[in-house]
Amino acid sequence: MMAATEPGSPDSIAAVDLGSNSFHLIVAQPLNGHMHVVDRLRETVRLAAGLDARDHLSADARERALECLRRFGQRLEGLPPGSVRVVGTNTLRKARNAGDFIEEATAALGHPVEIIAGREEARLIYLGVSHSLPDAPDNHLVVDIGGGSTEVIIGKRFEALHRESLHMGCVSYSRRFFPKGRLTKSAMDEAVIAARLELEPVEADYRRFGWSDAVGASGTAKAVRQVMEQNGWSESGITLASLRRLSEAMIKAGHVDNLDFKGLKEERRPVFAGGVAVLIALFEALEIEAMQVSEWALREGVLYDLIGRIRHEDVRERTITAMAKRYNVDAAQAQRVEKTTLALLEPVADPWGLDGGEADYLLGWAARLHEIGLAVAHSQHHKHAAYLLENSDMPGFSRQEQQSLALLVRSHRQKFPAARLKGVPPATATYLQRMAVLLRLAVALHRSRNDASLSGVGIAVDGKRITLKLPKGWLDANPLTRADLEVEARFLSAANYKFTFG
Amino acid sequence: MMAATEPGSPDSIAAVDLGSNSFHLIVAQPLNGHMHVVDRLRETVRLAAGLDARDHLSADARERALECLRRFGQRLEGLPPGSVRVVGTNTLRKARNAGDFIEEATAALGHPVEIIAGREEARLIYLGVSHSLPDAPDNHLVVDIGGGSTEVIIGKRFEALHRESLHMGCVSYSRRFFPKGRLTKSAMDEAVIAARLELEPVEADYRRFGWSDAVGASGTAKAVRQVMEQNGWSESGITLASLRRLSEAMIKAGHVDNLDFKGLKEERRPVFAGGVAVLIALFEALEIEAMQVSEWALREGVLYDLIGRIRHEDVRERTITAMAKRYNVDAAQAQRVEKTTLALLEPVADPWGLDGGEADYLLGWAARLHEIGLAVAHSQHHKHAAYLLENSDMPGFSRQEQQSLALLVRSHRQKFPAARLKGVPPATATYLQRMAVLLRLAVALHRSRNDASLSGVGIAVDGKRITLKLPKGWLDANPLTRADLEVEARFLSAANYKFTFG
Repeated sequence: MMAATEPGSPDSIAAVDLGSNSFHLIVAQPLNGHMHVVDRLRETVRLAAGLDARDHLSADARERALECLRRFGQRLEGLPPGSVRVVGTNTLRKARNAGDFIEEATAALGHPVEIIAGREEARLIYLGVSHSLPDAPDNHLVVDIGGGSTEVIIGKRFEALHRESLHMGCVSYSRRFFPKGRLTKSAMDEAVIAARLELEPVEADYRRFGWSDAVGASGTAKAVRQVMEQNGWSESGITLASLRRLSEAMIKAGHVDNLDFKGLKEERRPVFAGGVAVLIALFEALEIEAMQVSEWALREGVLYDLIGRIRHEDVRERTITAMAKRYNVDAAQAQRVEKTTLALLEPVADPWGLDGGEADYLLGWAARLHEIGLAVAHSQHHKHAAYLLENSDMPGFSRQEQQSLALLVRSHRQKFPAARLKGVPPATATYLQRMAVLLRLAVALHRSRNDASLSGVGIAVDGKRITLKLPKGWLDANPLTRADLEVEARFLSAANYKFTFG
Repeated sequence: MMAATEPGSPDSIAAVDLGSNSFHLIVAQPLNGHMHVVDRLRETVRLAAGLDARDHLSADARERALECLRRFGQRLEGLPPGSVRVVGTNTLRKARNAGDFIEEATAALGHPVEIIAGREEARLIYLGVSHSLPDAPDNHLVVDIGGGSTEVIIGKRFEALHRESLHMGCVSYSRRFFPKGRLTKSAMDEAVIAARLELEPVEADYRRFGWSDAVGASGTAKAVRQVMEQNGWSESGITLASLRRLSEAMIKAGHVDNLDFKGLKEERRPVFAGGVAVLIALFEALEIEAMQVSEWALREGVLYDLIGRIRHEDVRERTITAMAKRYNVDAAQAQRVEKTTLALLEPVADPWGLDGGEADYLLGWAARLHEIGLAVAHSQHHKHAAYLLENSDMPGFSRQEQQSLALLVRSHRQKFPAARLKGVPPATATYLQRMAVLLRLAVALHRSRNDASLSGVGIAVDGKRITLKLPKGWLDANPLTRADLEVEARFLSAANYKFTFG
């Protein structure tokens, strides 16, 4: 999966964050697990403002975004596959027509765009912020007010222990409570109450968890701190008193166009009030006394995560292990199926174009989790497993990866192909279908769930022709498997695969 | 929920089993936790044979079934609600047009028809069979070859420890492998192999579990034993050798019409070969040496389950507790919500017609499990919970009860009404919707997840008007809850409820 970048290698890696308010690009050189940032780009794209009432991304916003990404793409030229991670957050999670945009964005950048879930975003933000904090054994509270969502995390050292992603952000709240830029006391009160309602179900848990210092990340927090500092409103970071003072000053100004505070950039003005309302609610709900601001956030977290993968400390591995345990997977059977699946992958990787990509990772993970649905019910368990894979909070995984895993597991038994991925390009669909075939065959070969040796199994493919070669005499000794493979041949023929064995 | 029948009461209870091959009625008088059977009726309806290729129940089969149920209904006259349980199994699980039939069947019987899942059927079969066995601390293997499914259970005393429901039955296999009644060696071999394939993924687990005696229940096993005995083919119950002998004799007969074995009833002939094939596969796969036959099965299990509920040993309670534990429910919050939900139910039960039914059970259970979806992911957790409730193996619950629970939990937050139950009569939908309103209000009142006292909350309803009365000054002290209730009023107004509070 990874490019040749190895620990200590000077090769560059990069992260792109397609945020709801601004897009960021960061290029760095990993060095012994840390990184040396060599370049940063930031553009205010205000993607969230391009969502209409039906959650469609406007053509305008799309074009604005793609123009920015073409510029970013130029900076990324020459970086090999696997060395760049591009993540989309709240607005792309919400946009119903995100599929097309993602294809175009991928083309503009030259690297695949992944959409990450809110809680995965929270994990990565914490990872980034924590690398900017002094290393201490205390709990940190990290809040990141984005354009469309706010992540709230408590963590220790580099690990997020408790995290939520809430539906409130500086762009969405500014549009909702301060339309046309009018700043009134009642609008500010309403905005704060709305944010308090979002926080209400989770605040008690955070307070119980506790922390020793609070850190804000991203635009809103940085802008607030800047204003506080330059106007001398607060000496010890951001406080609730200073936020109330700021809020009064904003209401007095009456309109975003009049927000000419020292230190406030003009491009921040239209989304400042929404962000401040969310920040006030956070201070009130979590009883924060003072907040420092970190320069680092999601994009740095994405980079550290990438470095972790390169150093074989892939968070995804831990997630898979944890899920297998949570759903009581029969480990021996999972291991048998994984081993055979990967043995079948090897000879077909080249002719089927499954090499150099994530095929080995995805197939291994799918094999390890293909029976998690049994924890729900035996009947239709492949569908339950797919549901869990598609909807679970899976640290380290993008939404597309979860969907790919879900599809593989969904089609490991019974009808095939069970489903097509919605909005997936045909090439990806073929790629996934071929992997699914390998998983199915491995499952069929191990249906009796015993340790009968399967060494010496060979496979050859030619387009849609698949030939499985079993050791001499093996089928006669295993007549049930013969029958299983015959059934499998019928299932596969429905998808136009010609499967023979002997 | 229950009628006035109490432990030791002589009042009759009854169970009706709408099997795929035959329908059974059993009437009994419970006495100190045991039962005295006072009446049994059985009719061969062959419901499974009425399913067409698209799994639609033919008008013919439906009429045949309803005629039988009208006769049963006559026998059930005078039995109060709650004293009769009617369960439908495989064919009704499969029939796509089961909804209409169930309404008519309910009308014919005067008691609601429940569809139960295969593994719930397995649990009840074991409960019935185990009450016919000598009480010993050894594991029993119980197999029940029905018309459309076969249940295989290992249990100890009265408890099923390991159970499966497999897609093979005497009616379905006879139709599939012996069409037009022709009996050949190759057809028999194919049928046995097909059954072996069904058993293959589970057989190793059963063998590992182990048992000291094997017991067959229901028509196929009884008919086989009868033939063995009357022809002197086996002295120690059913054995694999005697089954092979029987199979050879059947192939020699060449056609079901020629199956004039001593002891074989004519009505059994058309479905005998399929049942024998399944039985042979069971003997082979599980390495059964000899099998005894029990006269008791599903219907007796249903009765014992009913007695358990009357004696407040409701299996469903255990299931709810186990699920809450499995999905790490916040017990304190669940308890708060349950308490308030039931407090709200009391004054509205009469005007909203929620009394005398299962409302208090269902609402209590829904409250206890409404947060299980959090174990999957925070986002959309009400939907994940509904998925789990609809699809999980939940001992003691019928499919309709699971759907009702799923609907309540599905609509405990966000949009309302989230969904209508597919194929549910409007009266039931209203009934569930009203319960859902109570659960929602309780959840809204407890969103802050703390132990703030809520005593003194009153509620009054009049059709779609709901008035919540809070203690004086309470709302001023809890401004967030006021905002929560305002949000709730908007959600409820979308379903035409007029919700006010103060």
